[in-house]
Amino acid sequence: MLDGARISVIGGTGKLGSAIARRLAKNGRAVVIGSRSQASAAESARQLGHGIEGLTNIDAATVGDVIIVTVPFEAQTRTLEEIAPVVRGKLVIDTTVPLAPPRVMRVQLPPEGSAAARTRAILGDECRIVAGFHNVAAHKLILDDTIACDVLMFGDDKDDREIAIELADAMGLRGLHGGALVNSAAAEALTSVLIFLNKTYKVDGAGIQITGELIPPDATTAQQKIAT
Amino acid sequence: MLDGARISVIGGTGKLGSAIARRLAKNGRAVVIGSRSQASAAESARQLGHGIEGLTNIDAATVGDVIIVTVPFEAQTRTLEEIAPVVRGKLVIDTTVPLAPPRVMRVQLPPEGSAAARTRAILGDECRIVAGFHNVAAHKLILDDTIACDVLMFGDDKDDREIAIELADAMGLRGLHGGALVNSAAAEALTSVLIFLNKTYKVDGAGIQITGELIPPDATTAQQKIAT
Repeated sequence: MLDGARISVIGGTGKLGSAIARRLAKNGRAVVIGSRSQASAAESARQLGHGIEGLTNIDAATVGDVIIVTVPFEAQTRTLEEIAPVVRGKLVIDTTVPLAPPRVMRVQLPPEGSAAARTRAILGDECRIVAGFHNVAAHKLILDDTIACDVLMFGDDKDDREIAIELADAMGLRGLHGGALVNSAAAEALTSVLIFLNKTYKVDGAGIQITGELIPPDATTAQQKIAT
Repeated sequence: MLDGARISVIGGTGKLGSAIARRLAKNGRAVVIGSRSQASAAESARQLGHGIEGLTNIDAATVGDVIIVTVPFEAQTRTLEEIAPVVRGKLVIDTTVPLAPPRVMRVQLPPEGSAAARTRAILGDECRIVAGFHNVAAHKLILDDTIACDVLMFGDDKDDREIAIELADAMGLRGLHGGALVNSAAAEALTSVLIFLNKTYKVDGAGIQITGELIPPDATTAQQKIAT
């Protein structure tokens, strides 16, 4: 479904954003990274290579077909308010985790229930939203190694979740349907637990894997959708 | 730390409670199951075998040194209010998951933030509370098979978490420190996601595993504590 789509990573000069942009570009996708400053976006894009372009966040959001938001929790609201006018009808993949430094090992979900619910409140119903990539360690993702971490995708539209899963797969990760957008609370909260595990068990980037024999849903139906 | 301790499973005639009681009793622990009806507790205990005793919930809570609460979300408040007077100073391990049927595949954390926070509010500060066993499938736990699911333990006291981890280990599961009691929200929410995964991917009891090389914390310190 993503053939030819331009993917814009908002906050793409950050650790997670850079890592996502690089993996997607290496996989042959057209990728733009956005930053508050065009100059630093261009410089990061140059360093990342693989044809990545650097623009301001608003320009990146304007030219992108799929928008991946990778900004710290404290920048979530102002960034989304900035890009809201230009992302109507587009798929926005939100990676925001509600970490409130310095107590990042403590689950602190926002009053809305999840960062994803806040994104929905800011962007409104005209926007397509999937939340994901909460639990993958950015410092591992920036390297080419295999990563032992599943990526749960949450959203109220199954086809939109499927696109996000396709992106995760393109990055060498296993993407999985995690259910409704409100379910994002589970993965968001889990990030604080993983940070706690990293410290307590001296792990270099703990992750999660779903166990059990998973049979992909409606494999045939998805094929038919692409064919028609 | 658990040598000779009597473990009481409140709601022990239910699926999760029976499974926990049976695994602990098979491991040589002294186990009591509680139910609203003494007769059904006694009957379940007889069927489970391994020396398990059956009492009413209040009697089980009275005689137990460690109390494991395994009741449905809708019975949480009244059950805890019933046993509150007799569990002061004891360790209560709360397994409550805030599932609100029929929408069990949807994360619905209570206003307190988690079922564990509600337990804390009901039992008060005189009680020692750890939350855990949220993500393990009861129908797998009742069998003797190996289960591919880690058990995250949440609580504000590290030694209490350690006791809960010891119980998980005695049940053949890998127990892990998950941090503060509020972090229980992560595992509670994850249960709805796992139910969604079971349905979507036709899995027979999906679980989670923490990935990465985990080094047990303060192994030496724990040894010393037991020795002194």
